[in-house]
Formats: sequence, C-alpha cells, structure tokens
Amino acid sequence: MELLKQRIIKDGKVIGNDILKVDSFLNHQMDVQLFNEMGKEFYKLFADKEITKILTIESSGIGIACIAAQYFNVPVVFAKKSEAKNLDSDAYLSEVFSFTKGKTYTIRVSKNYVNSNDTVLIIDDFLANGKAALGLAEIVEQAGARLGGVGIAIEKGFQDGGKLLRESGINLKSLAIVSRMHDGVISFAD
Amino acid sequence: MELLKQRIIKDGKVIGNDILKVDSFLNHQMDVQLFNEMGKEFYKLFADKEITKILTIESSGIGIACIAAQYFNVPVVFAKKSEAKNLDSDAYLSEVFSFTKGKTYTIRVSKNYVNSNDTVLIIDDFLANGKAALGLAEIVEQAGARLGGVGIAIEKGFQDGGKLLRESGINLKSLAIVSRMHDGVISFAD
Repeated sequence: MELLKQRIIKDGKVIGNDILKVDSFLNHQMDVQLFNEMGKEFYKLFADKEITKILTIESSGIGIACIAAQYFNVPVVFAKKSEAKNLDSDAYLSEVFSFTKGKTYTIRVSKNYVNSNDTVLIIDDFLANGKAALGLAEIVEQAGARLGGVGIAIEKGFQDGGKLLRESGINLKSLAIVSRMHDGVISFAD
Repeated sequence: MELLKQRIIKDGKVIGNDILKVDSFLNHQMDVQLFNEMGKEFYKLFADKEITKILTIESSGIGIACIAAQYFNVPVVFAKKSEAKNLDSDAYLSEVFSFTKGKTYTIRVSKNYVNSNDTVLIIDDFLANGKAALGLAEIVEQAGARLGGVGIAIEKGFQDGGKLLRESGINLKSLAIVSRMHDGVISFAD
C-alpha cells in the first residue's frame, strides 16, 4: 500500500537495523484518516471471505481493527493480555511469547464472542516473529471458527513471522513489508 | 443517549450492586455501529470546543476514541500504562490508582504528541472513581494544552468520579449515567 509505505519513509524512525518506531501515526498517536485508507485496503483484500468478525489484540491493534470493521460491517473482539495463567473456563486461552519483553503472557478471548459460525479476520499493527498472530489463530481454531485471513499493517519481512504464517497455510496480507533497514534507510518488498 | 441506555439494559450484566459488565458491546467485543452513534453524539457535545486531539488510555478507550475522531477529524493519542515507574524525559507521566486492581500504575504520553497548541478531548469507556480521567487531565495540563472536555460512554453515577471532575471545573459529558443498580435492575440519571 503506497500511502502507508510513503508514511513509513516520512515518519518512521529506524533504531539500529531492526527497530522501526511508527508511534507518530500508528501505535501511540494514531492517524485515523490513514487508518481509514488502510481499512479500505483490508476490505479489498478480504472482501470475498465473508468475514463475520475481526479479532485483534490489545492495545495497538484495536484502533486499526475498529476503523477497518466499518468496511466489513462486523464487530471487533480484542484479545486481552495477562501475565497470570489463571484458569478461565469461559475463555479461549493461548500462550504468546514476547521477544520484546522476554516473557510469555496469556491471551484470552471470551467464548461468548467467537464461535463456530464465525469467519474471523485477524488484524494487527505489526508482524515480526508472528507469535501474537499465531496465538490469535489458535484461539480461532479453539472456537471452531474459520480463519478468513490475517491482515497486518507493517510486516518486518526480515523476521520469521511472515514465513511461518504463510507456510502454515494462513492467508496473510501485509499492507507494507519492510525487507531491510540499514543505516536508517528503509527498503520494502514488492 | 437513549440508544446506549437501551443497549445497557438489553445486554449489560449486573453483578452485585456495583459491577456492570458490558463486554458484549463495549470493552471486549465492540459494536462499531454503536460506536459510530456514540462518536456523533460526542461530536454534538464538543463540536464548539475546537478540539485538535483526542486523548484516551489503553485499552478499552481506544476503539471509541478512534471512531469518534472521524467526526472531529483529529488524531488520537492513547496513554500507555506501565507498572514500572521508570523515568522517561520524553514523556508526560501521571500516577493512577486502580481500585479494581488495588494498585498504582503510571500512565505515559510522549511529549511529541500533545503540546501547548492543542485543545484536547479526553474520551474513555467508563468513569467510576475518576482516577484515570484525572490522570489524563493532569497530562494535558503538563503539556500546557487546553482541556476541551471529557467524554465518557458510561458513568457510574453512584461513584465519586463524576462529582470530582465536575467540581474541579472539568466539562464532563457522559452518554449514559447509571444512578443505581439493585437486584439486577439498572436505573439511569436524567
């Protein structure tokens, strides 16, 4: 998505060769006009999947998911993160390892809000190692729902997540795939 | 706002006399169509304030804030919560005590995204004791910005937050004020 790539080049901050900060428009301050263009693009990519629900994860996926949901005309559910492994028979749970924080957390979605009649689109702001997306996909599977696809704003193509998801047969679409960051210069995959 | 009150009556779950669960449409599953009606209502209530930015707090304020921002045509910034009191000279910080969790956490907003040219509208899903809203208002003040108002989806009128904010001169508007919950029956203030 050209508009997003241009914005990453304009406002993204590269730290070293693997950290990309986009908190001026994506995940701290949020440019809702840009989110609308992204939402339209997600709709183009997944319109044929008969999506009934968008699933995301707190916190920075929520804004993009809600704006995109307007085009699909479906509700959004966000998975909650917690460090406690408390049992909760009313919720689907999955364990996600965070490389950033160096620890595993539990994500949780109430059984009331995803079920076997759903076709779910997972939306998130970033894809790096893919652990969060795989955790969400596992919850979709636990619910007996169909996974219509995974829509990501920015994929770090030089990390394993994209490969992992695509090889497991998941219909992954990323609006911008960063292939390389070097000396502050950002390159994109086609 | 009649539509929200009716939805609370229809889908809200009262636990005891003070817990109101609205996670089927507001803060776990999110009804984005309802959020749009709420966004229009917030715009009616604050249209004359020349809002330049909407400020909310992760996680459950983000969806409502992003949808509402479309009517104001402004960006959203969400305050991040952390348990660590780490110093961060690039951010405005405030301490918020959570009665639900029985502990104090730090909220943080980058200095890059709120400044003295801003007129800020704070939006959140719930107002109970008002600590989160007051923490956000303190950040607006630290930034030298004007506080255009505080817009809340559901105010628990039987807790202190509303009184506290109104008495401190804050322009607080809540779309639904629950005045009492008793034997599972929800009453609203006018």
